[in-house]
Amino acid sequence: MNYKAIITMVSKTLLVEATLMILPIIVALIYGESILGFAMTIVMIAALCVPALLIIRQKRSDIRAREGFVTVAVVWVLMSVFGALPFVIEGQIPSFIDAFFETVSGFTTTGSTILKDVEALSYSLLFWRSFTHFIGGMGVLVFVLAIIPLADESSMHVMRAEVPGPTMGKLVPKIKDSAKILYILYILLTLIEAVMLLIGGMDLFDALIVSFGTAGTGGFATKNASIGYYESSYIHIVVATFMLLFALNFNLYYYLMLRHFKSVFKNEEMHAFILIVFASVAAITINILPRYENALIAIRDAYFQVTSIISTTGFATVDFNTWPEFSKTLLVAIMFIGGCAGSTAGGLKVGRIVMIFKSFRQEILHMLHPRYASVVKLDGKVVEKGTLYGTLVHFALYMCILLVSILIVSLDGFDFTTNVTGVISCMSNIGPGLALVGPTGNFSIFSPIIKLVLSVDMLFGRLEVFPLLMIMTPTFWKRK
Amino acid sequence: MNYKAIITMVSKTLLVEATLMILPIIVALIYGESILGFAMTIVMIAALCVPALLIIRQKRSDIRAREGFVTVAVVWVLMSVFGALPFVIEGQIPSFIDAFFETVSGFTTTGSTILKDVEALSYSLLFWRSFTHFIGGMGVLVFVLAIIPLADESSMHVMRAEVPGPTMGKLVPKIKDSAKILYILYILLTLIEAVMLLIGGMDLFDALIVSFGTAGTGGFATKNASIGYYESSYIHIVVATFMLLFALNFNLYYYLMLRHFKSVFKNEEMHAFILIVFASVAAITINILPRYENALIAIRDAYFQVTSIISTTGFATVDFNTWPEFSKTLLVAIMFIGGCAGSTAGGLKVGRIVMIFKSFRQEILHMLHPRYASVVKLDGKVVEKGTLYGTLVHFALYMCILLVSILIVSLDGFDFTTNVTGVISCMSNIGPGLALVGPTGNFSIFSPIIKLVLSVDMLFGRLEVFPLLMIMTPTFWKRK
Repeated sequence: MNYKAIITMVSKTLLVEATLMILPIIVALIYGESILGFAMTIVMIAALCVPALLIIRQKRSDIRAREGFVTVAVVWVLMSVFGALPFVIEGQIPSFIDAFFETVSGFTTTGSTILKDVEALSYSLLFWRSFTHFIGGMGVLVFVLAIIPLADESSMHVMRAEVPGPTMGKLVPKIKDSAKILYILYILLTLIEAVMLLIGGMDLFDALIVSFGTAGTGGFATKNASIGYYESSYIHIVVATFMLLFALNFNLYYYLMLRHFKSVFKNEEMHAFILIVFASVAAITINILPRYENALIAIRDAYFQVTSIISTTGFATVDFNTWPEFSKTLLVAIMFIGGCAGSTAGGLKVGRIVMIFKSFRQEILHMLHPRYASVVKLDGKVVEKGTLYGTLVHFALYMCILLVSILIVSLDGFDFTTNVTGVISCMSNIGPGLALVGPTGNFSIFSPIIKLVLSVDMLFGRLEVFPLLMIMTPTFWKRK
Repeated sequence: MNYKAIITMVSKTLLVEATLMILPIIVALIYGESILGFAMTIVMIAALCVPALLIIRQKRSDIRAREGFVTVAVVWVLMSVFGALPFVIEGQIPSFIDAFFETVSGFTTTGSTILKDVEALSYSLLFWRSFTHFIGGMGVLVFVLAIIPLADESSMHVMRAEVPGPTMGKLVPKIKDSAKILYILYILLTLIEAVMLLIGGMDLFDALIVSFGTAGTGGFATKNASIGYYESSYIHIVVATFMLLFALNFNLYYYLMLRHFKSVFKNEEMHAFILIVFASVAAITINILPRYENALIAIRDAYFQVTSIISTTGFATVDFNTWPEFSKTLLVAIMFIGGCAGSTAGGLKVGRIVMIFKSFRQEILHMLHPRYASVVKLDGKVVEKGTLYGTLVHFALYMCILLVSILIVSLDGFDFTTNVTGVISCMSNIGPGLALVGPTGNFSIFSPIIKLVLSVDMLFGRLEVFPLLMIMTPTFWKRK
């Protein structure tokens, strides 16, 4: 294990985090709020990381798969620990566990909150809270890769561990350039959303916050009523549509820029995603229609809630906890699916679901004709047996962690619906669940230990299980 | 597709069912009840099947994989249709859908009931209801294989589709002999249980019924309070222990008879099963202890409920729906697991869970050392990559059918807990769930269509998904 390389990467990333804290400090200065929390955190990070980098002085780090996983796991945990400090120091979230939960929820773009009254937070902390969504959405290490020099193969190992999806497609030969392109697209889309929200009459602060929350498919808002606070249908529809856009594979936008329209339109994952969204909106609209006087409003609300859940954002415009059982259950079902690979969305990813369904057909063929070798194709290309196998293992592992987590969470004694949907919501990085953790509820009800368990679930979800699981297994630390 | 072979196998099996109906007729005669329902059903089966066999006159049927799956699927559906008729004709379950649900629940050894008052049924129908557990437990086609002449390869295809587990181990070179040995062991164990219950003071009728319910890991009882009706701890412990014994792989008993002790004691599936049972009993005992004055009674009740659920029997001695949330959730978790492969139990099977957990470790190794080929071993033997892959596909398919079923069942508008645990209970062939379908509730609350959906789930569970799923896919019917 190359510990020097790991410490170097982790230190550089934490310093990037410290640098990014200048933004909420600017917000604090504008609104005349205390900058103590952020300033102290920046000093602490610098005091830890600068000496570490000076002592180690590694110019070019050699990172293999093993170091990649450790780096990603350690970065995500430490980033959340330091990211939580401003909340604690400013006394606005006095308990460190609560602040940690909130920050993990931010970076993992979950959006589950322990706050009973979001509107009581200061502007600078509201900004930081939502900005963590923006940082975590595309991946903080991907950002670091875009700005620091690292051998291409080493970057690959880091990026593979942080970017969601069963396989990682490089946009351009060099990972560093891929990372840059991804971030440029990401910032561009976010700005477009912010501008469109400004046009809709939202003030600048809220427009930025909502755009960060959408971009990272996070879901933290500045109002207790989430997006439901804004009465304009225009705003609902803009946010819902951008949630969809951020849940699509970013490679598609790059192909679009290059006018590779064929690569975009034959993308099977996108087809499946649009189909699921369309079918879910239709089914829920029919189910909730009797409660609405205006069918268009029913469609609008169904569209918003479906895109919010499947993109794993978690904004809400209505309390879907009061919807009929079928609509609620359908929302829970699409919680598992999530967005597309290579997007900022969580969940299992549509691409995995597509592959799993194709493996069903293949297994049936195999049972009927044991000697006939059939292959699974995606976008016209043969999917390697190893990728397919890995996808199935990932699915099984996801379900097992879910079950074990639900079992542990049940120790707090809340009802089955709260526990099950709360854990699914955290694992899939969504935000709200049903019952006590529904859109009008929050996660403050749980005991500190269960909050930590749910934080780990959010990290499991965002990092797609393996990096975190690996460093927990003895096998990983054994010398070969 | 060899339709003649299928019709021959199906007709012969239905005639076996008709013959077995002589037993409830004897019960009816003893208790002076009407024999009309059974007599009419026997005549109907004979009128359909005897001419079919005479017209086709196939001596030696050639059954391949394809025909094996169709035969198993058709037999199980028709067997349940005819098995339901006596309930309807006698007017004791007037609705055919209800009677069909009850009979599918019987044959699949689920034990979920639509009856609000079990004790109102006549003796002959109570007998038949529980006898379906006994027939379905070991597999009706396995029974037919033991008594009719069929080429060994053909038998293999039928047996593989009906016997639970990821792989099928033949006990002896000839399938026909394997089937005979299995049935002899099965009947022997059932008789031993009945005798032990008689010793405990149960009357002959109840002892038989309870033994049928235990042997098939079904769970239909003659009392509304299930086994809780009997106050004797001896009876609770005997039933619980036999539930465990019937959830073990029957091959183990055969090895025991042959004094192959090594094959028994190195069986990893058995180790895992015992470990899970022990850990669950311990965890639940600690969790419920504050509610009990006597720790031994707490252990007894935890032991009974755990063995009942993990063996997928579904008998109850207490209303575990009133237990603390953790204990209830733990019971739901072990609902997924079920018993061992090659037993009469349902669920995913412990062997599959063991393999899935081993695949997690293998995938971690693969991610760390992509060029290093590791294998998964079970009982010291290398598990074929195809078997492992098939196990993972099975797991994913199981979960998908579960999710889709829960979604459909939610249309009836009952609460999330009822829907989720009701479907899991049916798919894993257990019986009770939580909330409205808990030990004191029943499935009469659902609409007729949802009862059919749940019946299909029970069949999916008992036949391990594929036979039923296959005949529903266009791929299956396409000529190659």
